[in-house]
Amino acid sequence: MGDPAGIGPEITVKAFSHKSIHKICKPIVIGDSSVLANAVSFLKSKVKINSIKSVDDAKFSFGTMNVYDLNNVDVKKLKLGKVSAMAGNAAFESVKTAIQLALDKKIDAVVTGPIHKEALNLAGHNFSGHTEIFGYYTKTKNYAMLLVEGNMRVIHVTTHISLRSACDLIKKKRVFEVIKLADEACRKLGIKSPRIGVAGLNPHASDGGLFGWEEQKEIIPAVKAAKKIGINVEGPFAGDTIFPKLKGGSYDIVVAMYHDQGHIPLKLLGFSWNEKKQKWDSVSGVNITVGLPIIRVSVDHGTAFDQAGKGTATEESLLNAISYAAAMAKNSN
Amino acid sequence: MGDPAGIGPEITVKAFSHKSIHKICKPIVIGDSSVLANAVSFLKSKVKINSIKSVDDAKFSFGTMNVYDLNNVDVKKLKLGKVSAMAGNAAFESVKTAIQLALDKKIDAVVTGPIHKEALNLAGHNFSGHTEIFGYYTKTKNYAMLLVEGNMRVIHVTTHISLRSACDLIKKKRVFEVIKLADEACRKLGIKSPRIGVAGLNPHASDGGLFGWEEQKEIIPAVKAAKKIGINVEGPFAGDTIFPKLKGGSYDIVVAMYHDQGHIPLKLLGFSWNEKKQKWDSVSGVNITVGLPIIRVSVDHGTAFDQAGKGTATEESLLNAISYAAAMAKNSN
Repeated sequence: MGDPAGIGPEITVKAFSHKSIHKICKPIVIGDSSVLANAVSFLKSKVKINSIKSVDDAKFSFGTMNVYDLNNVDVKKLKLGKVSAMAGNAAFESVKTAIQLALDKKIDAVVTGPIHKEALNLAGHNFSGHTEIFGYYTKTKNYAMLLVEGNMRVIHVTTHISLRSACDLIKKKRVFEVIKLADEACRKLGIKSPRIGVAGLNPHASDGGLFGWEEQKEIIPAVKAAKKIGINVEGPFAGDTIFPKLKGGSYDIVVAMYHDQGHIPLKLLGFSWNEKKQKWDSVSGVNITVGLPIIRVSVDHGTAFDQAGKGTATEESLLNAISYAAAMAKNSN
Repeated sequence: MGDPAGIGPEITVKAFSHKSIHKICKPIVIGDSSVLANAVSFLKSKVKINSIKSVDDAKFSFGTMNVYDLNNVDVKKLKLGKVSAMAGNAAFESVKTAIQLALDKKIDAVVTGPIHKEALNLAGHNFSGHTEIFGYYTKTKNYAMLLVEGNMRVIHVTTHISLRSACDLIKKKRVFEVIKLADEACRKLGIKSPRIGVAGLNPHASDGGLFGWEEQKEIIPAVKAAKKIGINVEGPFAGDTIFPKLKGGSYDIVVAMYHDQGHIPLKLLGFSWNEKKQKWDSVSGVNITVGLPIIRVSVDHGTAFDQAGKGTATEESLLNAISYAAAMAKNSN
């Protein structure tokens, strides 16, 4: 459900009104029934809530929204669009519950709505984001963030750290691990012979060592090691050349060295800003945590507190996330 | 003309066959007549070369290509698609001549074709690129690289240095200078009230200092100082949000902190890779050096040695560059 004060509940209700979702999976919302009932009400949705305490109690039919009810939000005190410890804690508990249900194999995949880091921290949960919560509670060390938009896929060697620290973390071992994760992730997404491109860290991938040494010392050896174990991987190539080539179909996935290198191209293609209405017309694309023992797919946007409760937020990215999770669950069974 | 062994000569000949070019300016090619005659021949072009030794001798009519002939290439020895000192030196001399003609006000603007850094260095000219040659010979200290693609403009605080060095160069003074250059450049391009957005260096523009300190210590003070002198500037904003907003029309120009941050989004939209034919179908966009006492616009691509002499390279970016140079010359007169 995501943070109850954000757009998570309303895009969840909107997503449930798409028949397509019910055709590809058996959906259960993990969150608070009263918050979702409020969203159903202001959206004037016809969806009926079936509040459950166990996955086994779910009834799967179009028009019904099963809510695994954590009953952890006081709707009278909840202020939509505002950061609060209550909302942060509710979001955290729904994520933690989802992870446990997935580890217990009660559910096949987890799709996460947007949470707010400040609210999370206010509630005493000191994680820098969803991905880190999943890493911690599944006891996973080697994981990576994968963004998907259309047929473009980008996996990240580093994410939420300063650019200077990102440079320090470009090490042969980690780059090699992420190339392996890229290969695995593509296979889980149904790509039989993944073609992987690796971006350089420096401009022009250092132009043969002229602008930086990380390509020579860390990235090239990692690519060679990955080739040695049979992975179809090329690079490193200049960041400004590899993404148009990814768009053109040269690769199934690109390994990006830092957050913005991978996020800028995918969000540029997936997001569409309406300057007149001062809102996003489109926010497609999904975020997959690769390397976990469970399947986790997330929306590619934030809580959008400025839009919460207005019913204007688009469920596009959530629909994408649900269909990716369903496809990955199918491929892994 | 660019490097005589690259695609520069052939895209120049192709560009001259567009009537539109002759309507917006009086074009003169600076380079070697015999190299261009060879391109005319393998392209089976009807363009006639008028070899001149002085700008005053040029005859401007469609079908004629004035060549300010430096007579510095032995066509028999020239190997298309190969790096050579002869070609590097010829490219260098044509650039240096163009700069001098512009400083002497014999020409109103310079458009540059692609050169090859290795060839340049082989010929003993140790510059890392065009931009640096222009900076040196016009004795300019504060200049910046501006990329333009459609109505998207991005100016760079740093360019051809390692990412680590780029982090070190994000200083209030330089960021402030580049914001000023962004404002000036937009005005020279005919935008009366430029709206400028500034990208952060770190992911999420550091999320309030959580991932790096450069936003707080260097970029925010620079933005404040620019606002103080009346510039309409906002930021810093997350790199992955500001470019979709630039595309959506929120800004006339974005100030990028490093090479790939600005190059990835613009080339992703301007370049189109054809995987079947293994070539670029489209390479639109131009590169403008801002802050020089003369006008300099360049193509947005390299020498493409693998395509040289085949006649398949597109003149799209060169046409864009010529029309930008003509428009800037008009606005500055």
